[in-house]
Amino acid sequence: MTHLISATSPSATASRYRHVRKMTEKLAAPLSAEDQTVQSMPDVSPTKWHRAHTSWFFETFLLEPRLRDYRSFHPAYAYLFNSYYEGVGARYPRPRRGVVSRPGVAEVRQYREHVDDAMTRLLAQTRQPAELDLVDLGLHHEQQHQELMLMDIKHVLSCNPLQPAYTTATVSAPTAVRPRAWVEHPGGLVEVGHPGYGFAFDNELPRHAVHLEPFSLASQPVTCGEWAQFIEDGGYERPDLWLSDGWATAHGEGWDAPLYWFRVVDDWWLFTLGGPQLVDPTEPVCHVSYYEADAFARWAGARLPTESEWETVAATRSPRGNFFDPSALHPRPSAHPESFFGDVWQWTSSAYSPYPGFRPAEGAVGEYNGKFMVNQYVLRGGSCVTPADHIRTTYRNFFPPSARWPFTGLRLARDLGDPA
Amino acid sequence: MTHLISATSPSATASRYRHVRKMTEKLAAPLSAEDQTVQSMPDVSPTKWHRAHTSWFFETFLLEPRLRDYRSFHPAYAYLFNSYYEGVGARYPRPRRGVVSRPGVAEVRQYREHVDDAMTRLLAQTRQPAELDLVDLGLHHEQQHQELMLMDIKHVLSCNPLQPAYTTATVSAPTAVRPRAWVEHPGGLVEVGHPGYGFAFDNELPRHAVHLEPFSLASQPVTCGEWAQFIEDGGYERPDLWLSDGWATAHGEGWDAPLYWFRVVDDWWLFTLGGPQLVDPTEPVCHVSYYEADAFARWAGARLPTESEWETVAATRSPRGNFFDPSALHPRPSAHPESFFGDVWQWTSSAYSPYPGFRPAEGAVGEYNGKFMVNQYVLRGGSCVTPADHIRTTYRNFFPPSARWPFTGLRLARDLGDPA
Amino acid sequence: MTHLISATSPSATASRYRHVRKMTEKLAAPLSAEDQTVQSMPDVSPTKWHRAHTSWFFETFLLEPRLRDYRSFHPAYAYLFNSYYEGVGARYPRPRRGVVSRPGVAEVRQYREHVDDAMTRLLAQTRQPAELDLVDLGLHHEQQHQELMLMDIKHVLSCNPLQPAYTTATVSAPTAVRPRAWVEHPGGLVEVGHPGYGFAFDNELPRHAVHLEPFSLASQPVTCGEWAQFIEDGGYERPDLWLSDGWATAHGEGWDAPLYWFRVVDDWWLFTLGGPQLVDPTEPVCHVSYYEADAFARWAGARLPTESEWETVAATRSPRGNFFDPSALHPRPSAHPESFFGDVWQWTSSAYSPYPGFRPAEGAVGEYNGKFMVNQYVLRGGSCVTPADHIRTTYRNFFPPSARWPFTGLRLARDLGDPA
Amino acid sequence: MTHLISATSPSATASRYRHVRKMTEKLAAPLSAEDQTVQSMPDVSPTKWHRAHTSWFFETFLLEPRLRDYRSFHPAYAYLFNSYYEGVGARYPRPRRGVVSRPGVAEVRQYREHVDDAMTRLLAQTRQPAELDLVDLGLHHEQQHQELMLMDIKHVLSCNPLQPAYTTATVSAPTAVRPRAWVEHPGGLVEVGHPGYGFAFDNELPRHAVHLEPFSLASQPVTCGEWAQFIEDGGYERPDLWLSDGWATAHGEGWDAPLYWFRVVDDWWLFTLGGPQLVDPTEPVCHVSYYEADAFARWAGARLPTESEWETVAATRSPRGNFFDPSALHPRPSAHPESFFGDVWQWTSSAYSPYPGFRPAEGAVGEYNGKFMVNQYVLRGGSCVTPADHIRTTYRNFFPPSARWPFTGLRLARDLGDPA
Repeated sequence: MTHLISATSPSATASRYRHVRKMTEKLAAPLSAEDQTVQSMPDVSPTKWHRAHTSWFFETFLLEPRLRDYRSFHPAYAYLFNSYYEGVGARYPRPRRGVVSRPGVAEVRQYREHVDDAMTRLLAQTRQPAELDLVDLGLHHEQQHQELMLMDIKHVLSCNPLQPAYTTATVSAPTAVRPRAWVEHPGGLVEVGHPGYGFAFDNELPRHAVHLEPFSLASQPVTCGEWAQFIEDGGYERPDLWLSDGWATAHGEGWDAPLYWFRVVDDWWLFTLGGPQLVDPTEPVCHVSYYEADAFARWAGARLPTESEWETVAATRSPRGNFFDPSALHPRPSAHPESFFGDVWQWTSSAYSPYPGFRPAEGAVGEYNGKFMVNQYVLRGGSCVTPADHIRTTYRNFFPPSARWPFTGLRLARDLGDPA
Repeated sequence: MTHLISATSPSATASRYRHVRKMTEKLAAPLSAEDQTVQSMPDVSPTKWHRAHTSWFFETFLLEPRLRDYRSFHPAYAYLFNSYYEGVGARYPRPRRGVVSRPGVAEVRQYREHVDDAMTRLLAQTRQPAELDLVDLGLHHEQQHQELMLMDIKHVLSCNPLQPAYTTATVSAPTAVRPRAWVEHPGGLVEVGHPGYGFAFDNELPRHAVHLEPFSLASQPVTCGEWAQFIEDGGYERPDLWLSDGWATAHGEGWDAPLYWFRVVDDWWLFTLGGPQLVDPTEPVCHVSYYEADAFARWAGARLPTESEWETVAATRSPRGNFFDPSALHPRPSAHPESFFGDVWQWTSSAYSPYPGFRPAEGAVGEYNGKFMVNQYVLRGGSCVTPADHIRTTYRNFFPPSARWPFTGLRLARDLGDPA
Repeated sequence: MTHLISATSPSATASRYRHVRKMTEKLAAPLSAEDQTVQSMPDVSPTKWHRAHTSWFFETFLLEPRLRDYRSFHPAYAYLFNSYYEGVGARYPRPRRGVVSRPGVAEVRQYREHVDDAMTRLLAQTRQPAELDLVDLGLHHEQQHQELMLMDIKHVLSCNPLQPAYTTATVSAPTAVRPRAWVEHPGGLVEVGHPGYGFAFDNELPRHAVHLEPFSLASQPVTCGEWAQFIEDGGYERPDLWLSDGWATAHGEGWDAPLYWFRVVDDWWLFTLGGPQLVDPTEPVCHVSYYEADAFARWAGARLPTESEWETVAATRSPRGNFFDPSALHPRPSAHPESFFGDVWQWTSSAYSPYPGFRPAEGAVGEYNGKFMVNQYVLRGGSCVTPADHIRTTYRNFFPPSARWPFTGLRLARDLGDPA
Repeated sequence: MTHLISATSPSATASRYRHVRKMTEKLAAPLSAEDQTVQSMPDVSPTKWHRAHTSWFFETFLLEPRLRDYRSFHPAYAYLFNSYYEGVGARYPRPRRGVVSRPGVAEVRQYREHVDDAMTRLLAQTRQPAELDLVDLGLHHEQQHQELMLMDIKHVLSCNPLQPAYTTATVSAPTAVRPRAWVEHPGGLVEVGHPGYGFAFDNELPRHAVHLEPFSLASQPVTCGEWAQFIEDGGYERPDLWLSDGWATAHGEGWDAPLYWFRVVDDWWLFTLGGPQLVDPTEPVCHVSYYEADAFARWAGARLPTESEWETVAATRSPRGNFFDPSALHPRPSAHPESFFGDVWQWTSSAYSPYPGFRPAEGAVGEYNGKFMVNQYVLRGGSCVTPADHIRTTYRNFFPPSARWPFTGLRLARDLGDPA
C-alpha cells in the first residue's frame, strides 16, 4: 500500500484523522464500562480493547519511530494492545482480552487523547507522502475496527439473556419482495485488482488479467424469505447440499438457522443491534457462514460467484448502497432493481490467496494481510456496518468459512451456456 | 441448620443484616465497573455477580415466599443470579458469567437497595425463629461470598500483566522464624461436630463419636520458608512424593511453586491483594492445592491431619487468629507459640463426606452443602479473608484437591507410637 | 504387605504360580490377535498388554534383582509394559497402548514363557519369605489383571456394532424376585482391617478401631428390576437425587441407564460377555457408577454403606458367592436369603483413604496402592469376574466415582433410630 | 468422470481388476493381524479397514445395483466400511475404526474373495461403458487406498517405540547434490484440466483457459539438505516466515523438523518404511505440511507454484519418475536434470476449488471429490507410494494445510520480471 500514489494532502489527512477518530468514540458512547470490558468468545474483542488497539497502531507505527520526543503513554500498552504483529514484540493472548479490567474506559480515553495530541503535532509537521500513507493506513485500520466493534458488541449483547439493544434505531417496515433478475457477462479476459492510485490495501494488488467463462450474477443478495424456504425444505438436514466440513461444522454446532435467528412459536425472530425483532422476509439474509451460503446456493441450483466475477460486474456499477448509518445498523430490503454494495458482505467461492506478483508492505505493517492468506474466503461489497468511505470495488474482506458473526450474506451466480 | 435452637433475636438479626450487607459493598468499593465484570476462569465469578447473587438469595428464600406484596426487582434475575439451586429453576451457565455486561454495577446497587428495603420490612414484622434462622443462613452465605469476592478478584487482578493492587494495605516486616512444636493427643473415643445450639451449617451435624489413634499436630502452619526448601529439594520433580492424580495435575499445569509465586532472578515474589511483594519466609504458605500439601507433608516425613484430629485439638483452643482485616488481607507471620485459626485454611486428609446421620435442610436450601459431598477435601480454621464472626471450630470448608485460588495452606500431623 | 506373616511354602507358591499364570492364558484363548490389540478408551488396556505387563511385574521385581544371570527378554519391554511405577523409570503413555501393534500375541506368549521358565528356576531355589511374599503379590496382581482383562474386553467388544460374544456361556433363566430384608447392627466400637496373617495388600492395614452408629444393611444387592423402576420414576432426570458432580457427569455423558443397557422397542437389553440379552429383573444391577448408586440410594430413601459398616457385617458371614466362573461371567439372581459377596462390587460411601497408621510397602511396589488414595471410592465384596481365591472380607477395591466399566453394583444401608 | 470416452475394453478392465486387487493384498502381506488393526490417529485407518472398504466400494456401487442374485457378504459391512458416502446410509465413526477388532484379517480376506468372485461374474457379462467406467473408478479408488495404506501403516509403525520396519528394502547411497535450475515460462493464456478422453476424476474437469503471468519453476523438488539449512537458520522460530495459522499450528504441535525426523546427537535421522535411517541431504524432503512448505519458500526468496503453473510446465514433460516401487517406498535423490513427477507430492499454492463449469458425477459417487473442496490445498505429481498407472499430469490430489503424514514435499516457483 505504501508504494501507491497517495491522493491525500497533509490537511486532508489531518481532517480525516479527526473525523475517523471521533467516530470510534461515538460508536462506543452508548456502551457502559461493563459492556466495553466483555469478550464473549475468542474471536470477539472488548470495545475498550478496540479503542486502545487502534491508538496503539498510531503510537507504534508513527509516533514512536517518527515523532521527536514522543513519550509513550504506558510502557505495558505495547504488550497489551498489539493484536498480532509478531515483528514488534510479544503480545497478550487474544482469547484472554476479556480478563484485563485495567486500563478501564477512563484510562483508555486518556490514552486516545494522548495519542491524538501527539498525532496532531506529527500531522502539523509532516510532508512526507510515505508518512501520510501510513496515517491513511492507520485510519483504514481504525475503520475496520469500527466495523469489528459493532460485530463484536452485537455478539456480546446477544449472549445476555436480557437481550439488550445497542441502539434505539427503528427498523423500516417490510416491503414487497422484488423478483430476482440475472446480470449476464460473456466472460473472456478481464482485469481485476486495484489500479494503483488512491488508497488500497496490499492484498488488492497488483492489478492483473484473469480469464472468465460466461456467467451471470443475481441482481440482489439472497433474502431472509428465501432462506426461510431453504430451512423449510430441510436445507440444514440434507447432507447432499453441504461441503463435508460444512456438514460436520453445522451439525457439531447445532446450526438450524442463521446466527441470531430464533423461533418464537411459529415465527422467526432475530437479534439486532436494536434488540430482537421479527424476521423481515424481504431483507437480505445476514450472519450466515460460507458453509451455509455454499449449501444454499447448491439448493438453489446455483453457485457462489468467484471474486473475479463479482469484481468484473461490480466495477461497472456505482459503489453505492446501505453502508454504515447510525440510524440503521441492519440490512434493509432493497429499493433498487440492482444492489451490489452494502447491507451484507457477500461470500465468494474464492479462497483468500495472493494475487500474482503480490508483495506485502515493508516492515511490520506487512503483517497486515499476507499472513492470513490461508483457510479463509473472500467477501466483497461491504455491509451496513462498513463506513462508506472505507469500501472500494476492489476491496477484499476475508473470514474463515465457519464465521457467522460478521455481517455476511450472499449473492448467487450461474454458469452461462454449456460448460463442456 | 434450621432445626438448631437459634440464639438470634429479631433486633440482633436486623442489626447483623445491616452490618453484613454493608461489608459486601465496602469490599466492592475499591473496584471499578470493569473490575467487577471480569471472570478470569470458570471457578471465578465477577464481583457484581456476587453482589447480586447474595441479594437473590434473600429475594428467593425469604422475600418471595414470605413478604406480602413483595415485587421482585427484575423477572430475569432469578435466572441470572441463581448459582446452583436446581430446586428453584433453570440458571445461567456458570462459566459464562463474565459475558453478562448488564445489569451493570449501578443496577446491581439498586437491586441490593431494593432487597435491603424489603428485608427491613420483613425483619420489622417477623417473629418466627425459622425465618430468623433463614436470614442468618443468608448472612452466613453472604459472608462466604465476601471471602469468594476477595479470592476471585485476586485471581482476576493477577491475570492482568499490570499486576494492579486491590488495596494499599502495607505488609508487616518479616519476623524471626518460630521453631515448630508438636501438640500431642492420646487418641481414643472423642466427639466431633456441632453441639446444636447457635448457628451451624447442616454439614457440621450431627455431633458424633469418632475413635482416634494417638497423634500429634504441629503448633503452626507450614511457612513460605519451609516451602522454599521443599522447592529447592526438588519437591515438584519427585514423583515418589506425590499422589498419582496430583503428579498428573502438577505436571499437566506446569506447577513449580504455589499459585501467585514467581521468580525474579534469584528471589521468590508473590502477588497479593496489595500487589506484588517479596516472599516472607516466616509467613504461612498460601494458595497451595491439596495435592501439593499432601506431597509436602510426605516430604517432611509427616502427613496431613484428619478433620477429627484437627477439631479435637482445636476445640481446646480459643478460636482467635488473623481473620479478615481490611488492612491486611494476607497471612502474617505468627506472633504466638501456637496458631490454629486464621491466616490460611488448612487442608485435612478427610474427604468431604456426610457425618453419620446427616440430614440436608428441607427445601431448596438443602442443596447448600450435601450435594457437593464428593471429590472434595475438608479444610479447617478460616483464613485472613474469612470474617471472624463467620468461623467456628466445627466449620467445614471444602474444595477440590486441585484448587489453589482459595487462601489454602496446611498444618502437619504425625502418628504417635506404634500404630499397630 | 511384605511384613505380614506369610502362610505360603515354596512349593505351594510354585503351584499357585503355575495355576494363576495358566488362567491368564486361558482367559485370552477365545480372543483373536485383533481382539487383543484394541484399546477402546484410555482406561482400557489391550489384552496382550495385560498379558505382557503381568509378566513384566515378575521380571522387574523378582527376576532382575534376584535371579543370577537372568537376561531380560527384550530391552524395550521395561518401557512398554510398565503401568505406572515411577520408581522404575519412564513408561509408554497409557492412552496410546492401543497403537502398539508389536510385539504381537505370538511374541507376548514367548515373553510369558521366558518369564515362566525363569520364575520356575527362581522358585526352585528360593527359601526367603520376603521373596515368596513378593511372588504372592505378583500373583494377586495378576489376578487383578485377570478381572481387568474381562472388564476391558467386554468394553472393547461392546463398541463393535456386530456385538460379538466373548463366551458362549448360557445365562440362567430369571427367578422369582426375593424380597429384600435388612440386617441390623447396634453400632459401637468395632475393629476393621486385615488381622495381619496371610496375604493382604498394604491398604488393608493396619487393623484399627472405628466407632459406628446403629445401622442396617440390605441383605441383597439392588436388582435390575429395582433399577428399571428408578428409571421409570425419572431417576435420571431429577437433579434433587444427585450429587452435583454426578448430575453434571450423567448429563454431560447422556446417561439414562447403566452402561451396556439399551432399549429395543419396550424392552431393556444389556450387552454381556455372552453377547446381548434381555435384562433379567431379578439379577443384581451391574455397571453403574458411584454417582448413579448414590442417586439410586437417595431415591430409595436409603444410603450407601460405609466400608466399615460393610466389613463389620460381612466379617460375620462366609465369604462365598458368585465369583469368577468361566461358564457365567455375569451376575446371577440370588438363590440365598443373604448375599454379601460376589456378583457385583458394591460401592461404599467411603472415599479411598489411608487407614490410621498406614505405611506403603518399601520400594517401587510401594506405589501399588497408596498413591491412588484420592478421588476414588471403596468397593467391597468381589464380583462375578473376581477369582474366588483373590478376595477377602477386608479387601478394598477402588475406582473413581464416574467409573462404570468395572462390574459395579450396590447394596443399600440405613441409619437405625434417631442419630441425634 | 462417467461421461468420459472410456478407453477400456471389458477384458482389459477384468485384467486390470485382477492386477489392482492383488496388489492390495500384496501390500498387506508383510503386516500381522495386530498391525492391520491399529489406528494411530483419527486420519489413519487400519489396514484391514482399507482392504474391506475398497471391496465395499465394488459391492455397493456395482454388485448390489447391477449383479442379479448378488448376496452381500454381511449385512453390517455396509455400515462398517462406508467411508463418507452420506448418500448410501449411516456409517461407523471414522475416529473409532481402530476399536473394531472383528471382522479380523481372515474374514476380511474372505470378504475380498467373495467380492472378487462376484466381480468376475459381473465383468464376464457386462458390455456397458458406464459399468466399465464405474469399475475403473473403483480401481482408481483402490489405488488411492493403496497409497493411503502405506501412509497409514508408516504412521502406525512410527508410533511404536520399537520403530519396526514395514519392508527390508535397502536405501540407495547419497549422491552428489545437483544444483537447482529454473524452468521459465512466459505466461499468457493457457489451457489446463483433463482433455476428456481416458479416465479422469470429475475434479480434473472441465478443461478451461487460465491466464498466467510470466514465472519460473525449479527443476527439482526441495531436498533434505536444503531443509536442514532452513532449520539451522531458525526457520521454525521466525514468525515472519510463516502464515499466521501455520505459526499457530507449528507452535501448538511443537514442530521443529518434518514429520518422522529426529535428532541423534548431532545428526538428523528419519523413520522410513524400511525403519530408521540417516537423513540423506540429496533426497527430496518429505512429510512437510503446506504451512512448512510455504514458510520454506518464503525463506528461500521464492513461493509455491499455482496448480496451473505446475500443470502448464509439467504437461510438456514425460510423466515419469520414482513412483510406487516395492523395493524403495521412499523418495530418492534425483538422477536427472529435471524431475517433475514422483518421489513426493508437491504442494501448490492453489486452494482446492471446483474448475469453472465443474459438475460432480451423478449419484452417490458424486460425493467422491466435490464435497471436499474447502480448507484443502492441491498437490501435484504423485509420490514414491503412488502407483505409476494411477497418476496423470492433470491429477489433483488434496490435503488440509496441516497434513504431514502423506508423502508431501515441494517445488519452488518465482515471478519473472516486474509484476508491475
